[in-house]
This record gives sequence, structure tokens and C-alpha cells, in this order.
Amino acid sequence: MQPYLIAPSILSADFARLGDDVQAVLEAGADVVHFDVMDNHYVPNLTIGPMVCTALRNYGITADIDVHLMVKPVDRIIPDFAKAGASIITFHPEASEHIDRTLQLIKESGCKAGLVFNPATPLHYLDHVMDKLDVILLMSVNPGFGGQSFIPSTLDKLRQVRERIDASGYDIRLQVDGGVKVDNIAEIAAAGADMFVAGSAIFGKPDYKAVIDQMRDELAKV
Amino acid sequence: MQPYLIAPSILSADFARLGDDVQAVLEAGADVVHFDVMDNHYVPNLTIGPMVCTALRNYGITADIDVHLMVKPVDRIIPDFAKAGASIITFHPEASEHIDRTLQLIKESGCKAGLVFNPATPLHYLDHVMDKLDVILLMSVNPGFGGQSFIPSTLDKLRQVRERIDASGYDIRLQVDGGVKVDNIAEIAAAGADMFVAGSAIFGKPDYKAVIDQMRDELAKV
Amino acid sequence: MQPYLIAPSILSADFARLGDDVQAVLEAGADVVHFDVMDNHYVPNLTIGPMVCTALRNYGITADIDVHLMVKPVDRIIPDFAKAGASIITFHPEASEHIDRTLQLIKESGCKAGLVFNPATPLHYLDHVMDKLDVILLMSVNPGFGGQSFIPSTLDKLRQVRERIDASGYDIRLQVDGGVKVDNIAEIAAAGADMFVAGSAIFGKPDYKAVIDQMRDELAKV
Amino acid sequence: MQPYLIAPSILSADFARLGDDVQAVLEAGADVVHFDVMDNHYVPNLTIGPMVCTALRNYGITADIDVHLMVKPVDRIIPDFAKAGASIITFHPEASEHIDRTLQLIKESGCKAGLVFNPATPLHYLDHVMDKLDVILLMSVNPGFGGQSFIPSTLDKLRQVRERIDASGYDIRLQVDGGVKVDNIAEIAAAGADMFVAGSAIFGKPDYKAVIDQMRDELAKV
Amino acid sequence: MQPYLIAPSILSADFARLGDDVQAVLEAGADVVHFDVMDNHYVPNLTIGPMVCTALRNYGITADIDVHLMVKPVDRIIPDFAKAGASIITFHPEASEHIDRTLQLIKESGCKAGLVFNPATPLHYLDHVMDKLDVILLMSVNPGFGGQSFIPSTLDKLRQVRERIDASGYDIRLQVDGGVKVDNIAEIAAAGADMFVAGSAIFGKPDYKAVIDQMRDELAKV
Amino acid sequence: MQPYLIAPSILSADFARLGDDVQAVLEAGADVVHFDVMDNHYVPNLTIGPMVCTALRNYGITADIDVHLMVKPVDRIIPDFAKAGASIITFHPEASEHIDRTLQLIKESGCKAGLVFNPATPLHYLDHVMDKLDVILLMSVNPGFGGQSFIPSTLDKLRQVRERIDASGYDIRLQVDGGVKVDNIAEIAAAGADMFVAGSAIFGKPDYKAVIDQMRDELAKV
Repeated sequence: MQPYLIAPSILSADFARLGDDVQAVLEAGADVVHFDVMDNHYVPNLTIGPMVCTALRNYGITADIDVHLMVKPVDRIIPDFAKAGASIITFHPEASEHIDRTLQLIKESGCKAGLVFNPATPLHYLDHVMDKLDVILLMSVNPGFGGQSFIPSTLDKLRQVRERIDASGYDIRLQVDGGVKVDNIAEIAAAGADMFVAGSAIFGKPDYKAVIDQMRDELAKV
Repeated sequence: MQPYLIAPSILSADFARLGDDVQAVLEAGADVVHFDVMDNHYVPNLTIGPMVCTALRNYGITADIDVHLMVKPVDRIIPDFAKAGASIITFHPEASEHIDRTLQLIKESGCKAGLVFNPATPLHYLDHVMDKLDVILLMSVNPGFGGQSFIPSTLDKLRQVRERIDASGYDIRLQVDGGVKVDNIAEIAAAGADMFVAGSAIFGKPDYKAVIDQMRDELAKV
Repeated sequence: MQPYLIAPSILSADFARLGDDVQAVLEAGADVVHFDVMDNHYVPNLTIGPMVCTALRNYGITADIDVHLMVKPVDRIIPDFAKAGASIITFHPEASEHIDRTLQLIKESGCKAGLVFNPATPLHYLDHVMDKLDVILLMSVNPGFGGQSFIPSTLDKLRQVRERIDASGYDIRLQVDGGVKVDNIAEIAAAGADMFVAGSAIFGKPDYKAVIDQMRDELAKV
Repeated sequence: MQPYLIAPSILSADFARLGDDVQAVLEAGADVVHFDVMDNHYVPNLTIGPMVCTALRNYGITADIDVHLMVKPVDRIIPDFAKAGASIITFHPEASEHIDRTLQLIKESGCKAGLVFNPATPLHYLDHVMDKLDVILLMSVNPGFGGQSFIPSTLDKLRQVRERIDASGYDIRLQVDGGVKVDNIAEIAAAGADMFVAGSAIFGKPDYKAVIDQMRDELAKV
Repeated sequence: MQPYLIAPSILSADFARLGDDVQAVLEAGADVVHFDVMDNHYVPNLTIGPMVCTALRNYGITADIDVHLMVKPVDRIIPDFAKAGASIITFHPEASEHIDRTLQLIKESGCKAGLVFNPATPLHYLDHVMDKLDVILLMSVNPGFGGQSFIPSTLDKLRQVRERIDASGYDIRLQVDGGVKVDNIAEIAAAGADMFVAGSAIFGKPDYKAVIDQMRDELAKV
Repeated sequence: MQPYLIAPSILSADFARLGDDVQAVLEAGADVVHFDVMDNHYVPNLTIGPMVCTALRNYGITADIDVHLMVKPVDRIIPDFAKAGASIITFHPEASEHIDRTLQLIKESGCKAGLVFNPATPLHYLDHVMDKLDVILLMSVNPGFGGQSFIPSTLDKLRQVRERIDASGYDIRLQVDGGVKVDNIAEIAAAGADMFVAGSAIFGKPDYKAVIDQMRDELAKV
């Protein structure tokens, strides 16, 4: 497993030139395309759906596309995203009545599967599904609401999940999303994360490569 | 009022190069950008939200953007689309508990307002709101489901709405969406429509201008 | 049937001294206590429930209490209001899957029953239930939203309902709610209404009797 | 088209001996098996689903099975009932956001399709779908609630639908369900119905054939 | 307490001859009738409701009927099942806003009460209700979805619940449902279960008694 | 921090003379006004909303008003209650998809924030939000249902929460609501509670001061 993955969130990319912008960030060193799907029900915003994912694949993007579903319920749209070229699909445990079944559905669709935890969501949803997870994503802000910064208690929560992953023996990525920047990425990695979503911290800067390089430099210090 | 408006649906555009593709279709003679918003609840698909609308404005698109909300409920997202640069916002009467209020909300947000009728939706939702409408959109396919062709009974329904509009004395566009092509656009116009949404019929062709010109030629015969 | 009924809405009364305030408005000449129930789901506000109705009865209020349910769904709470002393219970047809059944439930509970129409709601919900109605309430503003004035197209709608009532031969009150004032009450009565809800127009004035007398003077001119 | 169809509702049959009981009622002269599906959401009861339909087919029942869906939403379960052997599937227009689409789905599944009207539901849902209907079912009681008798205003409503059917030129059955008995079946037929659902009126009697014969005698007088 | 209970799920019985089939399985040695109720909302299927339970009692079934509610919400239908002859009623904690209250409601209705855990549902819902439980049911497949086999991590979960039950001192059955067969019933019992639901494993075989005897033989080895 | 707070629930006050009754109970020694908000969705009752809170402030009540939201969802109404004069706002974790965000919203609105636990709700919702809580409220009856008495297992749960609070080092009130009386208040305090809601135990007695004094006497013995 590659030690650290940087996953720019295309919510901060230019949707009028999405292919070029995503291509640019990948050429600048990003590892994975993070794709935030909001349905105006589970969260108070509506973003992008499977058609946009398909368009990225048709454009020629071959990197992993990591689809974070902020929708409720989740099952109906999963096969659509699998067909659209998603590599990873994650969802919130509160958004499915049948979490085990949803995880199976993602895997049967040919994608990697993960659970996402809101800042206040307890970790006990992990108790009986560690063997079915490829990714655990901890939100370090509340998804779907603007203008937030990294919630400090996420560090403790990361450490708790890191312990669970290590104890499980499974090969599970520990991803973090929300307020991740050059300034705090090392501290976050030290707490156990190995996959970092960043939106405006990367796309908001003129030189994507410079930011990503700085992030890697910080990560090298952990 | 311009006699006929052609409104390509960007659902059929290339989402990886959306600015360029929309710019191209406008340069080819389209009048209005039709923007289909689906939320995976009111219809079984999720498409694009306010951020994509903002990106088109930032890219430099100045044509009217005509936002068709296939979401339920509708009120929360209306101010978001107004801020994102929408010119027209239409919604389905079944998707709001307070239709009059929603129409007012759209107008207070600075946009033109309209109601959308599914193929089977009765026209009586028009009875008490004709004075608040800028657009009436008749769906000639069922929104959110793929691979459908123009439902013939829409022609009769168009004639009924045309009569209501003419009798009202209000300046209301009569828009149609679903299966509109060069082949049938004249017949649809003859039934009373004056605003035509077309997706793959335009974006699916190599030469947008050729199609739009053919449509205009057909319309000239009405 | 008493020609005109004035029904002050206790939403504008003083909830800290509700018994006294309601008693005062009745002594000032009001006929009926209008009781607006909002559930924060059907409309974006939450007001008062059955316990407050019971308290008015225990205080000694003997006038009719006219409960307007702005809740969805409606059936569960109807027996509670009947037990709490409601005289009339009205609801919105969109808020019940089984309108005929809900009307029967109200009547079996010992109350008079009515349907309420939002400004844009078509009148066809009346088609098959005229024999079960004691009241028809037309909203002349959108319920649950503040700061609105009387929607003028309500006058036409009142005339249409008045025709339906007269044609039916049934003894049905035609009530109007929203923006009713001394200034417009005569015009509203002329359009066919015979029961008038007024909130701040009455409770917002220092002398309730003066306002109600002015309203009656205006009504006498119709 | 056979002039009159008698469709016993298996809700009143013996669910412990369903195959035998249904076979008996068919041998006694019934034409169609009426199959009432309730989901505890659209109506306050839960009855039987596709597995019971399959069992009847496996038992050897070859008569038409007429599935009345009192469920909301309806689309997901339609293919299940088609696979289970349903001949006709009807649903309530309030229970589908996309009525035209649902009718198409039923037909594509190989079944006949129909709309059901609650006692208070206006007939305008028929306005744009007459060409897609095989059956129109008028409820003469409120579905899902026990102990009701035939609502008299259904007769007028039947006459209105009969006029619409005759004017349309389409071959559409006009079905009625609720409180139909030997006593009133002639009057109901005279109002325009040609398909009669009866539950306890048939299954509640010791001699099914005697009741059905009496019904046919009454119908012969119309 | 009888050491092991075998509870055939009537979902796999013949619904056209349900009384006979259930009688047969009881005569073959089954202890309890397991009755699976699905509402097409909490799970994607609709099965059978209280009327079918009543029919079994009227047929003469006197064994315990163990009703597993896969419905949401649950409270409204509980008194119906109690009246219909249910002995035990279990529900999913996610399906009630007021779990303690629902447990009380079941007990006040005269039935034994239990909670059901989906494969991924954490056990913490047990923390404050052990004193109110007669049964804990662990799902070893995802309810409502076909063609699944026993989820192996259920064994660990069974051991955890067994520990909680033993520590509590309460007399609580530990039931398991999904993929239970002659092959694995001993292992499942060894993990702590003492009540076994089996559907096609029993009803799918020509000789019920043979299967149940084999199961008891396996259980005798634990 | 004042050692013990007594918070009479105004659900048991006289809603026809609410200002006087609340004033009386405060003069009798109560510390805080407990304000129970039910929406007929999260619980089966509808009580009082922001307007009643405003009326108490306008009447001159200056004590803390402690608003317990038994509504779902919660976010929309929070700013309304803050504007209406609420001092504390508590909600049920099951009633918000974004608990951390809701807590922030309450604080940004200028109020103290808390979580409420139904009798069966596990305490793990506390795991990641202790730094954001001013109050934890344990329900010792099921909210919204009448005629219940104190659930004894609440004492153990109080002890568990008291340990968590003490371990956290944060200044968090531990409130209890449901069946609290002179008879058991000492035992409840001994288990860790320091804020006591009582409804009919206070308002149901002729002499508020006598009851509150008795409660304080009992608390003095802890």
C-alpha cells in the first residue's frame, strides 16, 4: 500500500473545465480524484452525479475516482456510479438501513467500499464490518455546510480508528476530509490518517504542484 | 417576445468540457441554456447543482440559464440557484406544499418562475396562479428515466395550455421537454409551444449549428 | 345561519395571558376562536397543540373553537383536539391520503369538519365531498410564512366556491384567512365569504371592540 | 368484452386454506381474483405480497389475478408482482410521482394497468392517461379501514367516469370496490360499473355459488 | 427453559396451503412458528400481515407464533398482531424512535418482546433494555434480500451477546436467522444461540421431520 | 455552578394563565423554566412553539428558559427559539443527521446546548462531543406518552454519565426528566443528576413553594 494518498476534492475544481482541471491536479501529483455527491436531503446542498463521473472517464481520467455519497438512501445510486467508473464508493452508516448489504452491493458492483463518519458519529458502526471495509473516512468538518475549519477532536478519533484498523489486521485506508491543509497535514497523519482529501487548499491555489509537494514534504516528516 | 426559443439541455453536453460545449451551442444559435437538476428523490437520478451553474457564469456564459428543478422539496435550494446565476427557475407543483409561496420565493430571488407538468399531471394546478407564471413547461417524457420518446398526447395538452395562456392575457412561455427533434418540432410548435428543450437531438450531433438551423427552418414553416 | 362570523386568530393573542385575551376578544364581539396549529413539517413554524385548547376550555371559554390544522399527516391528532374541546376541525387536502376518511373521523369525534385550500390549491378536491363539509376555508396568504398581505386572486376563488356552495344546497360556511382587515372585509364578503379570520388586525389594536365594530359596519354595507 | 366481471377479494378468504378457497370461489362462478396489497404506510394495515400471489399460481389458479396496490411508493414492487403472476395491476395516482411512467412500467411488465380513486380523489388524474388505462377502479369505501358501508356519492362518480370512458372510445373496465352486495349491485351497474369487487359479501357466506348467482341475477335486470 | 428451539420461517411454506404446511412442520417437531413481516419500506419486499396470523390461529395452530417485524415504524401494527394471536413480537431498534416504549407496548399487549440486530447493527442498543427483553435475534443475513448465505462474523457477535445475556442474569432467548442449516447449526449453537430460524432448509425439503431430527442430532453434539 | 437546579416543566402549567403561573413557580423557588416542544412527528403530541416562548419573555420572565426539542428534524427551528428568548436548547441525537453541526448552530445562536437521551438510547452519542455540551438530559420516561413513572434503570445510566462528565473535566449539567418527585429526588441526585425537571409533581400541587422546599430538603440530604 502506498504510504500516503492525496485526494483533491473536485468540489473545489472548475466545473466549466472539469476535465482539464482534474487532469492538471493529477499531473501535479495527486493520487486519487475525490468526488463529493450531495443530494439536498442528507446534506443541504446538491452537487454532481454519475453523469459527471462518466464524463471524466470519457475525457481520459484513469486515476481512481473515490465517490463519497452524502445521499440518503444510498442503494439505488450505487450501481449507477459503478457503471460511471467509480473506483471507491463510501457512504454514511446512518444513510442505509442495511449497512452490511450496502457494503456487499458496492463490492459486487466492482468497487472498493467504505464507511464515512460525521464528526459526532460514534465508531461502533465499525464493530461488525471491519472485514468488509477498504476505506474508513472520518469527516473533520460537517459535510454539506460551508466555511468550516478542521475539528480538533478528529485527531483523537483518528487515533481510535487507527488502533482498530491495526488490531483488525485488515488493509484499510484511513481517510480524512475537511480543513486539511499544508499546516496540519503532518499532525493529521501522525494521528493515523493515510489518505487526505483537500479541496480549496489545493484547487484554490494557483500552483497545484507546489501545494501537493508541500503536503508531501510535511508528510515526509511524520 | 422572441417567437421561438431553443434551449439545449446540458444534460447531454460534455461535463468534462462544459464551458466550451455550452459556449459552442450558444454560438451555434441556441437561445437559452436548459439546466436539469435531479436529486435522486423526486426522480431516480442525481445530476448537477448550483456549483455547476456558478461555474458556467464564471466561465463567461451570459445567456439565460433556465433551471428545471426535479427535486422535492424545492424551497431550500431556490436561493442557492438564484445566487448561482439562474435566470429562470421551474418546479413541479407536486414538489411543493406551498406552490404560490414557492413562485413568490423565485421572483423575490430575482428569477423568472414556472411550473412543470409531468405527462399525467392535470392542468388544474394552473387555475389560481396564471398571474405569477413566466413559463409553463410540459414534459413530453417522464423526467429522470432514460430512453423515452415523445408522448403523443402532449400535443393535445399543449393545445389546452395554449388556450389557457391566450385567454389569460399574460405573457407566458410554453415550453416542452422530451423527445423534441427536427422531425417533430414543427408539429409541436403548431400545438402551441414556443420554447423547445432538446438534449441529445442537439448535443448528440457533430454540428450543433446544422441541427439548430434545421429546427429553425422547421419552425419557420409553422 | 348567522350571516357573518368574525373569528380572531389566537396566533396574534398574548400567549402569556391567553385566557384573558381570548375572553376579551369574545366580549368585544368576536364569534369564534380561530386556533392555528402548525407542526414545523407541513409549514415552517410550530405553534400550539391540544393542551392549549384544553386550557381555554378549563378557563371557561365557551365560544366555538375553530381548529385549523396545518399539520401533515392529520389523523392521529384529530381525536386529541376533539377531546380538548374543539368545535370545528379543518385540514388541508394535501395533508391526508384519505380525505373522505379524515372528514368522517372528525365528524365521528363530534366536531364540524372542513377543508382548507392554499392559495394555489385547485378546487377539485371539493368535487366528491360537498356533502361532508361544514366549512370551506380559503387561505388568502400562504400559511406559516410571516409578513404577507391578502392575495387578490382569492376574490375570484371565493366567487367560484360560493357558486359551488349555492349549487350544492348544503349549509357550508365559506371562511377566509390571511390579510383580512377593516379595509377589505366588505369586498371579501361581497365575493362570497361569510366567516372571517383576522389576527393582528384585531389583536394588534388596543381596542378590540372598535375594530370588530368597524368590521361589522363594513359587512353591513355588503 | 364480457359484460360483467365478479372479482372476489381474497382479503375475506381463509388465508390458512387460500388455494382451496380461491379455487372454490372460481368454481362457484367468480371471474377474477382480486388481490389487495396494503403496506402499513399508504393505508393502516399490512396484508399480503408477491409470495402469496406466486403460491396461488403454483397451486394452479389460472384465472386473472387483479392486484390492487395500496402501497406508496409503487414502482419497486411492480416487477415483483408481474413475476409472481399478476394479470392486472392498479395503483392510486397519489402514490406515484410519475403516473405515466408507472402505467408504462406495468404494461412493459406484461400486465394490464389501472388507476384507483379514493372516495374523495378528483377525477382529473384521468385527463391525460385514458389511452394507457385498462381499468379504472373507484373505491366506494376508504381502503384499509374496517367496517364501512358503500358511500352513496360513488354512484354519481361512476356515472362521470362512465361518460369519460364512453367518450374516449377506449376499452376500459370500470371497477368498484367497497360495500358491494346483492342488494346494491344492480344500482351500481346501472351507474356504469362493469367489474365488481366483493369480499365478505361472498366469502362470508356459506354458499359462494348462491351469492354469485344472485349477483348475476341482479345484474341481468340492469 | 427448553434448551433449543427450532422455529421454521413460514416465508418458505406454501402460502396456498399454509394451515396444513404449518401443521405439518409442527408435527414434524418444530417448536415455534416464525412469522416474517416485511412492509416494502424497511426492507424491499412485502410479505404477510396480521390477517394471515389470525387465519393460522383460526385453523387451529396453538404453537407460539414469533412475529419478526421488518417494518418501520413499528408501533401502529403491534396491537394488531397481538390481537391476531402473536406470542412473541420482535423489531429492529432502528425502526422505532422510542425503543423502550415499543418494548413496553408489546408487553402491555400480552406478548413477549425482543430486539433484532441486522448484521452490521452495533450491540449497544442492548445497553439499557436488558431487563425488558425476552428475545434477542441476530440476523445472519440481510433481511429482505434473497439468495444470501450465513455471514460468518455472526458467530463472534453471538458470543458477545451470549456473554451479555449470561452477565445480565435475565432469561433471554438468543435467536439467529439466516442461512441456518443442518451443516452449521451446531457451530451456531456453540457460539451461544438457542433458538434457530430456518426457512428453505426445512420447508425446501420433502421430509420436514428428517431435517428437524438432523438438526436436533447436531444440537445434541454441542 | 449552583449545586442543584429545579426546572418545572410548563407542560403542566395552566396555558390560559401561563405568565402568572410561570411567575408563581419561579417566585416559589424554581430555578429554570423547562419548555417541552413536541411536533407530532418525533413524538405523538404537539405542544408549544417559539411564539409561546416570546410571550413569556414579553411578560417579563427573566429566568433561564430551557427548551427541550422533541422534534425531528431540529435545525430549522433552532434560530426561531434563540430569537424567542431560549437560554438552553437540547435535542435528541436521533433527530439530527449532523449532531456536531446542530450543537454548533445552537451555540452560534447564543444559547447553551445539550443532548437528550431516550431511556433506551445508548450513551455512545457522547463519545465525540463532550467538549460541545452544556447539558446532558436523560429521559426517565418515554417522551410524548402520558401516564408513565420513573424508569428505575435510569439510575445506573445517570451514574455512567456522571462518570463520563467527571472524567471529561467539562462543566456539564446532568439533567433528568420524567417521574421526578419529592420521594425519589434524593436517590436521583445521588446517582449523579444535578438538574431536575418536574411537571405535575410541582404544578399539580396547590402550593408550589411547599413542594420545591421539600425537594430542596431532600436534596440537602444527598
